[in-house]
Amino acid sequence: MKVEIITIGDEILIGQIIDTNSAFIAKELNNIGISVYQITSVQDDKTQILEAFKAAENNVDIVIITGGLGPTKDDITKITLAQYFEDTLVYDQAVLENIKYLWKNFVKQPLLQVNIDQSLVLSKATALMNKSGSAPGMWLEKNNTIFISLPGVPYEMKGLMNDEVLPRISRKFKRPFILHKTLLTYGLGESIIADRIKDWESKLPNTIKLAYLPNLGRVRLRLSSKGFDKETVINRVEAQVSALIPLISDVFVGFEEQSSIEQIIGNQLSKLGKTFSVVESCTGGKIAENITAYAGASNYFKGGLVAYALDSKTEILKIDPKLIELHSVVSNEVAEAMAQNVRQLFNSDYGLATTGNAGPSKGSSDAEIGTVCIAIASADGVFSQQFNFGKQRLRVVQKAVTMAFTLFQKEIFKNC
Amino acid sequence: MKVEIITIGDEILIGQIIDTNSAFIAKELNNIGISVYQITSVQDDKTQILEAFKAAENNVDIVIITGGLGPTKDDITKITLAQYFEDTLVYDQAVLENIKYLWKNFVKQPLLQVNIDQSLVLSKATALMNKSGSAPGMWLEKNNTIFISLPGVPYEMKGLMNDEVLPRISRKFKRPFILHKTLLTYGLGESIIADRIKDWESKLPNTIKLAYLPNLGRVRLRLSSKGFDKETVINRVEAQVSALIPLISDVFVGFEEQSSIEQIIGNQLSKLGKTFSVVESCTGGKIAENITAYAGASNYFKGGLVAYALDSKTEILKIDPKLIELHSVVSNEVAEAMAQNVRQLFNSDYGLATTGNAGPSKGSSDAEIGTVCIAIASADGVFSQQFNFGKQRLRVVQKAVTMAFTLFQKEIFKNC
Repeated sequence: MKVEIITIGDEILIGQIIDTNSAFIAKELNNIGISVYQITSVQDDKTQILEAFKAAENNVDIVIITGGLGPTKDDITKITLAQYFEDTLVYDQAVLENIKYLWKNFVKQPLLQVNIDQSLVLSKATALMNKSGSAPGMWLEKNNTIFISLPGVPYEMKGLMNDEVLPRISRKFKRPFILHKTLLTYGLGESIIADRIKDWESKLPNTIKLAYLPNLGRVRLRLSSKGFDKETVINRVEAQVSALIPLISDVFVGFEEQSSIEQIIGNQLSKLGKTFSVVESCTGGKIAENITAYAGASNYFKGGLVAYALDSKTEILKIDPKLIELHSVVSNEVAEAMAQNVRQLFNSDYGLATTGNAGPSKGSSDAEIGTVCIAIASADGVFSQQFNFGKQRLRVVQKAVTMAFTLFQKEIFKNC
Repeated sequence: MKVEIITIGDEILIGQIIDTNSAFIAKELNNIGISVYQITSVQDDKTQILEAFKAAENNVDIVIITGGLGPTKDDITKITLAQYFEDTLVYDQAVLENIKYLWKNFVKQPLLQVNIDQSLVLSKATALMNKSGSAPGMWLEKNNTIFISLPGVPYEMKGLMNDEVLPRISRKFKRPFILHKTLLTYGLGESIIADRIKDWESKLPNTIKLAYLPNLGRVRLRLSSKGFDKETVINRVEAQVSALIPLISDVFVGFEEQSSIEQIIGNQLSKLGKTFSVVESCTGGKIAENITAYAGASNYFKGGLVAYALDSKTEILKIDPKLIELHSVVSNEVAEAMAQNVRQLFNSDYGLATTGNAGPSKGSSDAEIGTVCIAIASADGVFSQQFNFGKQRLRVVQKAVTMAFTLFQKEIFKNC
């Protein structure tokens, strides 16, 4: 069974927004055993949308369309669908009631004709109720191809996928089980890893597909397999993973699907009953932000300090100015003092620190652009490491965040 | 002139990564007057890639391909291109020298045969030098259609776009000037705005396209126009913008293309010679991170405190525990005290504070999930506002960050 996702909107084609809807839809479909064959993004242009519908109908079994179902005049998806299905628009009473309810209880602004018109759907369509907004989804069938139209606002699209689309597809089709298992590695290049595991790779059965995904100092290895017997698929992949891990044990840090590194850290700290805090210079709050993106972070994260100006390091964190003068603000010595002091300041079990020069200019340190020192303090003492992450500001920051989490993960798992 | 972007990679089709390359390429092409007609993402599958090439060749003048040019076996773009162009692969000496240079100076790992093979290009191609990696780009022509192949690693793709692709396209084609001007509004729904400006909208000349982009409490209005005379295009759009702004002056906060709100704030603070600091509870470091994403933030940003645990508010920020007991930690009173104290702690001109409950559980406050208080302190005093941003954690955080920047922008521009 094949699915195509069509996303409609000039904002995608001019690069004003990044199409995150497709990734969400693709991932959710994979979870219920359905592969996405193609993703197509087209402009808000009737002819082009019609062409995309036609091409998709010839190629796939299900077409999922997002975008262009809002109340304003620039939205043309609904009228184009009506033309494609040679259909007319009719008011859906249940959708209209939902709009009235939302307006009365949440929007609290006058209900306009354009809002009422959002309850128009194709007469041939099954309307899919949008609990978070006024634009309903629609489910249509034509020559054995299913067309599903969803609003483009991400949280409305997600609600409709979870509440309506996935359950309906699951009921209608027998689907295989798809398994992706992704191993995270840090510290070796793609080609070196490929060389190391080439014997293993050459013997992979053709029921398993291997992909290398390199990015910013980390290479992910994804094994994918599918089949109608779930247990067979799992055993097949697990057997290969077990053979692979010993070949890369020095750089393997965990599995991606299981959870992110932030979650792995959080779970382990919760298990140990330990807390941590962080002081960030060059990473500017990104470590704290990544950690607090997860509910429950308050169980193990005490807080963070973004010590951006030099005097915030000396006055709030009480770093001895002489230490900075002697070693420079980007140095292992200062990073270690920062980690120790932030641990005390927040009264936490672990203290993390980053200090570096992300560029583009050198700032208050003599360190080369891209130099980052990361330190971790605990009751056992403190250690630090220095890195150079290149010359591009946002890459330096992201690599520093990744490395800080990598070192911290190793530290809290070292006695396991 | 029409362009199609083809992104290749199973990781896109299974939703493992979000395709950010397309948005970057589309935006850069728009800047030099070229519209993207379609974006197509396909699997690492030879037949499917060939189909996509064929369809694109019939539709557009330039095809930009990213993905699948790495050193490992799962990469098939290059051999598929060779098949499509009925061509063979030959070693490019300059590319090989570049690979040797990168390996010697940066990679510092043994040069393997797979790395050397990265210098293979189609004999009919012009190799495009990749300064940040081993996979070269390629420029090919077939029946008046240009095919440009780029690696999928984002920073390598970006380097090649800027260094090679954009300059070559600019030299080769006469291009129109494309202008997008996006007005940012906060506080009214899409349909209310549409109703307010309907007379203006109905009189828009057909040389200007209007789009509504609603997202998380903010509606963006984009006006787009193009033409070969730059001044005519600018005047045409400016005339409409001048007529539009008075209709939405109460909710209009600025233009998007000019710069982000973080940059607008940074520029204004630099102009005023003022600094700020922030204490974040529910926003968890995201305000600091967004600010420090821009080089030069150290000129106006003193630093931040992520006061996640309650005792970091009382002990580091010296908020009176009685105040918290009396009003609860999520209250205007506590937010105001936080803003005043962080301003003192970092010795900055302005102090920002967020305290709220992002959910999913209620935590240490009685406040409803989604409640966020934002306060701003300065030499003039302190003020705060309370909001409810709904029930979804990441949306609450993002809306709180956006609102904090919105209020702060209004504050620092109030005497202008």
